[in-house]
Amino acid sequence: MAETQKQIKLKKRPLGTPVMEDFEFTEASVPSPSEGEVLVKTLYISVDPYLRGRMQNTKSYVAPFELNEVITSGVVGQIAESKSEHFSKGDYVIGMLGWQEYTLAKEKEVRKIDPNLAPVTAYLSILGLTGLTAYFGLLDIGQPKEGETVVVSGAAGAVGSAVGQIAKIKGAHVVGIAGSEEKIRYLTDELGFDEAINYKTEDVPAALKKACPNGIDVYFDNVGGEISDAVFPLLNRQARIPVCGAISAYNKVEADVGPRVQTALIKTSSLMKGFTVGDYSSRFKEGAADLGRWLQEGKLKYEETITEGFDQTIDAFLDLFKGANLGKQLVKVAGEIE
Amino acid sequence: MAETQKQIKLKKRPLGTPVMEDFEFTEASVPSPSEGEVLVKTLYISVDPYLRGRMQNTKSYVAPFELNEVITSGVVGQIAESKSEHFSKGDYVIGMLGWQEYTLAKEKEVRKIDPNLAPVTAYLSILGLTGLTAYFGLLDIGQPKEGETVVVSGAAGAVGSAVGQIAKIKGAHVVGIAGSEEKIRYLTDELGFDEAINYKTEDVPAALKKACPNGIDVYFDNVGGEISDAVFPLLNRQARIPVCGAISAYNKVEADVGPRVQTALIKTSSLMKGFTVGDYSSRFKEGAADLGRWLQEGKLKYEETITEGFDQTIDAFLDLFKGANLGKQLVKVAGEIE
Repeated sequence: MAETQKQIKLKKRPLGTPVMEDFEFTEASVPSPSEGEVLVKTLYISVDPYLRGRMQNTKSYVAPFELNEVITSGVVGQIAESKSEHFSKGDYVIGMLGWQEYTLAKEKEVRKIDPNLAPVTAYLSILGLTGLTAYFGLLDIGQPKEGETVVVSGAAGAVGSAVGQIAKIKGAHVVGIAGSEEKIRYLTDELGFDEAINYKTEDVPAALKKACPNGIDVYFDNVGGEISDAVFPLLNRQARIPVCGAISAYNKVEADVGPRVQTALIKTSSLMKGFTVGDYSSRFKEGAADLGRWLQEGKLKYEETITEGFDQTIDAFLDLFKGANLGKQLVKVAGEIE
Repeated sequence: MAETQKQIKLKKRPLGTPVMEDFEFTEASVPSPSEGEVLVKTLYISVDPYLRGRMQNTKSYVAPFELNEVITSGVVGQIAESKSEHFSKGDYVIGMLGWQEYTLAKEKEVRKIDPNLAPVTAYLSILGLTGLTAYFGLLDIGQPKEGETVVVSGAAGAVGSAVGQIAKIKGAHVVGIAGSEEKIRYLTDELGFDEAINYKTEDVPAALKKACPNGIDVYFDNVGGEISDAVFPLLNRQARIPVCGAISAYNKVEADVGPRVQTALIKTSSLMKGFTVGDYSSRFKEGAADLGRWLQEGKLKYEETITEGFDQTIDAFLDLFKGANLGKQLVKVAGEIE
């Protein structure tokens, strides 16, 4: 095993869209576990839009990253060395771990996953927080009923593609909004969305009106901004809007300004609810069981965009804001322990 | 009884703030009831901000007013002539009736009220749709818990003053926002609000921060606009925002634009829900019972601004948008039938 490893630290708080210079590659020695600890070899790193928020020094649902500390996110790895009776060398685990080749973790910080039930990367996407985000946001807040119209923005992303498929399982008319012809085809041809709108080439308000002849009952919002503005005039009575992400706003330096929503909400008695998956932590088992079953039944597909090499981690993160990824964006850091 | 009567019709759809010229006084004969009908003599007319919305020809929760038709709103009157076995001459009734001195109504369109339980005007305010709006918006959507902080805008208005008092009954720390020193004193000295902010003379974001040292758990929104913008940065986790009115937007000709709310909702997992009192029509009895009991127990006070004379009806309506009224704005049209 190597004695030194590479790490990625946050060097500066990004101003607007993050750039390579906001991060720093450093070297460190590979640590050894003490009693009750394990050393995890990083196999896959999940890079997510929400991490942009943690790079800012503002109050939010999770503490901001510290400057000159290793960035953390969802990681799948293997136990390289164990001083815990619960883990053996080679076990596959998942946890919120560092952007580095090896992480020293307390046994409570990682959870075993079963590579025979699903590919290990699925635990970072459809069977992990991503799938659970889609599941609880759509079903607990959105509550789509059979025959209702569900619109999802960021539809070809990891969360959005799960949202649309779960809405189809519930019998809804599903309309996705995404940013390339490839994504549009993926949504309609592969995932069974009823309609898909390319916001980069189409007039979104007009296209939405056409795709939603009966109005909009549920809008799962991953993006905020002008795309979401276009949804409000089409809301039906008692519509529900799970607000999951606002990627259009994350990198804005100027104020994020648009039409105020109060009048539309009053006219339709509609609901908007922000959430993060952590709000539902007491119900993860229920969600994971449904997601696992739908996956095995072939009702749920998922896509991954896997970038190869730890050196590409920052690029993969920056690509999220260019809309380059289809489904979950992961970085493959290393091969498995033989 | 007079043979002719005065009426007020909508002549033009207002552009921006309504003006006298948008309305027309006309004369008509006083009709006679047929079988199953009653003739109601108008005693009090309720003028309400929401009527502005009905003057616009846009889709909303109630149909727009027709041009050259008599405007309708909440009215308390007395039966002047009855061809219904359910009503006798002199009975006090309430209904959605015309801006005119006499209205011909089907017996189902009016409901008897008891002048011995409360002054008849109370049925247009605290014991009527106004009180029920405050009750259900605050308790069903806002759900204030003891010790939480509740902020209400338009606090000295008919709905707002009831909201603040009900929140006090529920044990909350209550902060009102209103537009004059007289209103501020009324809120704190008469109604028992903990804090009140004069948005015309104070820096609202700074004053809110000071008045809400523990953040904001419930924001009952009657106004929208910049006052509401100032609330979002102070929301606590899982905050609730009943969206009842947006008077700041009703007369806007240009787009109503401000900071988008998505990011604040996500960061705090907060909820915004538009509503109108009609959403709760199946539960009116429950609300009316509580409101009546609190009124009798002296826990709920209400104020009325009563303008005298049918000819002043339009002025009273236009005054709403100048923030002139304390509590419910009514017009006294005529004395009681002896």
